[in-house]
Amino acid sequence: MKIANHHGRLVLVVDDGVVDVHDASDGRFGPDPADAYARWDDLRAWADDATGEVLPLDEDALGAPSPTPRQVFAIGLNYASHAEESGMDLPAVPAVFTKYPAGLTGPFAPIELSGEMVDWEVELVAVIGREADRVAEADGWDHVAGLTVGQDVSDRHVQFAAGGQFSLGKSFRSYGPTGPWLVTPDEVADRDDLALGCSLDGEVVQDDRTAGLVFTVPRLVAELSAVCPLLPGDLIFTGTPAGVGIGRTPPRFLAPGQVLESWIEGIGAIRNQVVAGGAA
Amino acid sequence: MKIANHHGRLVLVVDDGVVDVHDASDGRFGPDPADAYARWDDLRAWADDATGEVLPLDEDALGAPSPTPRQVFAIGLNYASHAEESGMDLPAVPAVFTKYPAGLTGPFAPIELSGEMVDWEVELVAVIGREADRVAEADGWDHVAGLTVGQDVSDRHVQFAAGGQFSLGKSFRSYGPTGPWLVTPDEVADRDDLALGCSLDGEVVQDDRTAGLVFTVPRLVAELSAVCPLLPGDLIFTGTPAGVGIGRTPPRFLAPGQVLESWIEGIGAIRNQVVAGGAA
Repeated sequence: MKIANHHGRLVLVVDDGVVDVHDASDGRFGPDPADAYARWDDLRAWADDATGEVLPLDEDALGAPSPTPRQVFAIGLNYASHAEESGMDLPAVPAVFTKYPAGLTGPFAPIELSGEMVDWEVELVAVIGREADRVAEADGWDHVAGLTVGQDVSDRHVQFAAGGQFSLGKSFRSYGPTGPWLVTPDEVADRDDLALGCSLDGEVVQDDRTAGLVFTVPRLVAELSAVCPLLPGDLIFTGTPAGVGIGRTPPRFLAPGQVLESWIEGIGAIRNQVVAGGAA
Repeated sequence: MKIANHHGRLVLVVDDGVVDVHDASDGRFGPDPADAYARWDDLRAWADDATGEVLPLDEDALGAPSPTPRQVFAIGLNYASHAEESGMDLPAVPAVFTKYPAGLTGPFAPIELSGEMVDWEVELVAVIGREADRVAEADGWDHVAGLTVGQDVSDRHVQFAAGGQFSLGKSFRSYGPTGPWLVTPDEVADRDDLALGCSLDGEVVQDDRTAGLVFTVPRLVAELSAVCPLLPGDLIFTGTPAGVGIGRTPPRFLAPGQVLESWIEGIGAIRNQVVAGGAA
């Protein structure tokens, strides 16, 4: 199953368009995409036999698949290749920061630069579909509604000036696009090994596989839910592989006018125009 | 004005008890305390002339004044005295981490230990009452609904093992008690200079004044809202002064059976029994 946030409404994504969940379910589900996750098992069961009018998909109308998460867990240094280029050790427990929800945006929204050291980080994002409270790693996938593509856009200056705490530099308005839709793990070829990457004006800058994750998705569900419950709609930005701009010689950063495209095998691609910052 | 979360309902705190806001307003406000902040200006205007049945205040029925914040901003190293005892430099921009909402708890709830290096941190907590989007420091207080007492309970082992990212070690279940109620800034003697402290089994371990804040409340509203909007009900844990356990020689940590009491002048006190961890 694929679901999306289309014109602010919950839709099923089908081969030739989208089906409005609220209309097709006679009001049983939707229209708010944020409500999908609290009733995830029911929604999945209903969707198996769902039929409804197929409407054209309007890419510009797509929003974040989980638009108002209660909690956003973002994992730093979770690929060995990226820790190495960052000159940092792999942590013993997940390096968790947040991307504040008010900074999140849609899959085709512009990224408004906050400065001259803003970097890209393509990431696999897992969305929680069933509350996870002290869940064992073996059961971790059972609590994941699905997967989507994310960009953990990062202001490197703020990230490192803030006493080493990453959250603020990762939370500027528009710094967390996700989408284009949410895909259930059974729909991808191998949920534990997916190609992911991103390009800048067509030049591939990150190209790796999620098999390189140090803390895998089910391991993260276990580690995080040992600390506090994970709630339906919560996001886990699982970390980025090698290839970010600050790891290059010389360093490279995002500039106005560029187009950043990010993709994951079996899910899809998001595309964000980079623009100069607004009122500062 | 003082408001509280009492038996899960929004109440006004008056001299001899509490007044149920939903009942006293004939259903115009409440009963959910979380809804108070989205309509803060209306609530304040109504409360000026509010009358209603005064019910006895049951301390054990008090919950967090803002029980389901969308965003929790917690500031590290925000008193010079605490940065010094921690052996760390004062950051140039606020060191922001989060306390995940699912780890927050009420003012008289037990603190369940996650390990043997769990520390206390009394903090002034500001609650947002009016959305703040690129707000100037001079207008910062206008966006604060009120102040409450918080404990930024911290698992030092996890805090420092997690690649230097503080959020996970600060978010264990029960590690964020706040309360006992929310007090509007006009009700305290000097909103920029309040005595605060905490004690362990009656022994005072922190005793300082909020005048020592490096980034003040209005400055934090400005700095944070320059990054992303602050939403009604959001919390800012403003940081702790000197006197935490890890800064002592030898270090001291919380142990089961202890009682941690935390207070701020003009607001009140919260009290948390320290207990051994549950299912681990």
